[in-house]
Amino acid sequence: MAENITPQKQDFAQWYQDVIREAELADTSPVRGCMVIRPYGYAIWERIRDNLDARFKATGHENAYFPLFIPQSFINREAEHVEGFAPELAIVTHGGGKQLEEPLVVRPTSETIINHMFSKWIGSYRDLPMLLNQWANVVRWEMRPRAFLRTTEFLWQEGHTAHATEEEARSETMRMLRVYEAFAAENAAMPVIPGRKTDREKFAGAVETYSIEAMMGNGWALQSGTSHYLGTNFARAFNTRYLDENNEQQYVHQSSWGVSTRLVGAVIMVHGDDAGLRLPPELSPVQVVIVPISRTDDERSAVGEAAARICRDLEGAGVRAKVDDRQTVSPGFKFHHWEVRGVPVRLELGPRDLQAGVVTASARNRPGRDAKFTIGLDAVVSEIPRRLSAIQREMFEEAVARRDAMTWEAATYDEYKAVSGEREGFCRVWWAGGPDEEERLQQETKATIRCIPLDQEGGEGACFMTGRPSRSMAIVARAY
Amino acid sequence: MAENITPQKQDFAQWYQDVIREAELADTSPVRGCMVIRPYGYAIWERIRDNLDARFKATGHENAYFPLFIPQSFINREAEHVEGFAPELAIVTHGGGKQLEEPLVVRPTSETIINHMFSKWIGSYRDLPMLLNQWANVVRWEMRPRAFLRTTEFLWQEGHTAHATEEEARSETMRMLRVYEAFAAENAAMPVIPGRKTDREKFAGAVETYSIEAMMGNGWALQSGTSHYLGTNFARAFNTRYLDENNEQQYVHQSSWGVSTRLVGAVIMVHGDDAGLRLPPELSPVQVVIVPISRTDDERSAVGEAAARICRDLEGAGVRAKVDDRQTVSPGFKFHHWEVRGVPVRLELGPRDLQAGVVTASARNRPGRDAKFTIGLDAVVSEIPRRLSAIQREMFEEAVARRDAMTWEAATYDEYKAVSGEREGFCRVWWAGGPDEEERLQQETKATIRCIPLDQEGGEGACFMTGRPSRSMAIVARAY
Repeated sequence: MAENITPQKQDFAQWYQDVIREAELADTSPVRGCMVIRPYGYAIWERIRDNLDARFKATGHENAYFPLFIPQSFINREAEHVEGFAPELAIVTHGGGKQLEEPLVVRPTSETIINHMFSKWIGSYRDLPMLLNQWANVVRWEMRPRAFLRTTEFLWQEGHTAHATEEEARSETMRMLRVYEAFAAENAAMPVIPGRKTDREKFAGAVETYSIEAMMGNGWALQSGTSHYLGTNFARAFNTRYLDENNEQQYVHQSSWGVSTRLVGAVIMVHGDDAGLRLPPELSPVQVVIVPISRTDDERSAVGEAAARICRDLEGAGVRAKVDDRQTVSPGFKFHHWEVRGVPVRLELGPRDLQAGVVTASARNRPGRDAKFTIGLDAVVSEIPRRLSAIQREMFEEAVARRDAMTWEAATYDEYKAVSGEREGFCRVWWAGGPDEEERLQQETKATIRCIPLDQEGGEGACFMTGRPSRSMAIVARAY
Repeated sequence: MAENITPQKQDFAQWYQDVIREAELADTSPVRGCMVIRPYGYAIWERIRDNLDARFKATGHENAYFPLFIPQSFINREAEHVEGFAPELAIVTHGGGKQLEEPLVVRPTSETIINHMFSKWIGSYRDLPMLLNQWANVVRWEMRPRAFLRTTEFLWQEGHTAHATEEEARSETMRMLRVYEAFAAENAAMPVIPGRKTDREKFAGAVETYSIEAMMGNGWALQSGTSHYLGTNFARAFNTRYLDENNEQQYVHQSSWGVSTRLVGAVIMVHGDDAGLRLPPELSPVQVVIVPISRTDDERSAVGEAAARICRDLEGAGVRAKVDDRQTVSPGFKFHHWEVRGVPVRLELGPRDLQAGVVTASARNRPGRDAKFTIGLDAVVSEIPRRLSAIQREMFEEAVARRDAMTWEAATYDEYKAVSGEREGFCRVWWAGGPDEEERLQQETKATIRCIPLDQEGGEGACFMTGRPSRSMAIVARAY
């Protein structure tokens, strides 16, 4: 469709890079593995951030900010944590012109330093639960960077909570996973499968890790958010204890949970098409772009005034609207500009429309002729919010339909291997395997167990690899 | 007044630390020079950030995000820049388990890496002006840290712009200084003096640096924001050029400007009193706290319902209101809790008030009995927003009055030395000195030339140190 964008079917990875370049979402930087987030990409992240932040605050969490640097000895205190993160760390050895006595780690995640502070702040059961969140940058050295999906530095939020009991901490872990699921569905128009990760895939230091898994346009999975039940692992390492009602010292039970700029990559790959981005209205920095069309100066002035008025009225109704009144480029250039950027609704306004009292609209989520509709000028303010809601819903339904169409089942590993060569998507399998089977699966097929969905249909079957009886199905897929 | 808070007159520095601790704004961290921003302190920062962000967007700027790490060679390219920043840098020498070929600097500011990207993005005059801003953390090694005022890591925004001409870039530099001035006056209720820094005090790499200088409660100055005209210094170092309308290559002219979490320190020290924080309503996370008072269960239920209703009504009117319905602490404890935290208005609601159809209010900005007023329950929603505006105005006027009362003049250096020993505040002097006089002034009196105000009253006088004729007065003060 669009020049400069490789068709998805031809090369999905190249399509992804082309869209990021053409929509000016991000750029490579002179620092290996680090990207620059350009204004349009950052504006999408701001929408993601603001929506999530409101959800976190509505569930009783407060934001705080902890240091970028963590003493290396802190990372070493939790055995699995250091084993998992050591290979990915960036280390500061010099500061203020001197070699440091103890090297500092640039935070890859903040469980350790936050637990140190929790130990200071938590005295008794009255201080619990402690429900904090941090919006921050983190660094994990990345050998194979890919814009938004895997970068050495990325932006994220990390929730960290401490509770009196295991039950409460587990309930918080699940609650926040469901908050992510709701955000994905309602704001990102992205159906996700909430589930438990296998031990092999869990967070270094967690007792259990849960994730939401989304299906990208090519059928691959993207882990789009994680929520961990940490048990007392970090509490023991940092002596984070509270006096209970019987005046006895107890370790706190903890959760942590995060999503990152990776979600921008998810939005691109779930909704994008061969013409570029398609943004769900909830996350689109601009929801409606108005393109005035005129040839004479008189026309320009009349059409320009009408466009400005529509824009003001829409903004008054809470719609993020914008007039593209550039004189230096043609209407066709503008159509392309906003199409690549995935703006949900475009309004074209020419002298004839004005005379007829209408405006010609196009919905970015629908193909070709289906996209066009006409609205009376008087009805724009009432009609557009309704249309945006409809587009949000249609985009979600389209993503659900594709995911369902690209989800299949395999009874045996042989069947999986035979079919997966020709069929992309999520494969549902009965699962009772362990790390050895997972290793073999990945070596032989490049696929992994994405998660064991929380919402199971019931029943029992034979594990597709071991044959052992199981009551749980798992999702197998290639993943980013 | 408050227990645990040292009176300002006794020890202002200790008062500052006490308020930060008692209001739970920040805490020290295990990493030297880095602080932890606690939820209440971070909520104030969020208010500062959101207000400024809206002002930046309204003046045509877009947010973007550039890497945390900068190749060391980039810093070295601009001679004054490296000289100024080298002693403060944190250096990453190892990443991903290996020693890096080229060390990476943790950004102290981003002119260099942003210029590298500008060189990529700017082709012709049509790409100008480029008006970007970044919200980020930066690191400048700090030997004498002080919460919010001087910390090794701090949060800030840095605006970076590129223009076709010197005139445009200078105009942008001034425009953003005035945006800071307006934010300080209108949101932070903080009068500031916008002015030019002397060459000795300017940003490493700038042609000119301008700042806003605020007077703290003890008469010291705090540089609260800076705006730099960078000329073509970084453009030459990074070859940031554009093709002009005659198809000739020209260097871009640039500005950069920033404010940081230091503003939280300014708000504490401009408005705080011996009872703790006093927050201007515009920046207060909670503008109105409602404390229900009851003895019996029946009373509790009636009063609780009324408090919840008032809270909802206020929120509906755009007021950030909160009911403190904790059962475990006394009303007196709650009064103290919110007083230390500087919440502008407290509403007390007991059974008698309810019966009389009124609520007892206290304004935090006024002392003792003056603070109290009564509002009819029916009038709360109309009266409170008016009161909040009045408090915002009163706090600004109070700060202006104090600043004016603590501003004096000295005709000669001898006079300055004689008076400044007994008199705190800003001293206005005629100024035509250079770096040698500034050095001597600081060595002998610990004071510095804060700025040469943009808004001069006119006239001419003899420089208070050199005796040379001058048309400019300068502000001399001790500073943080």
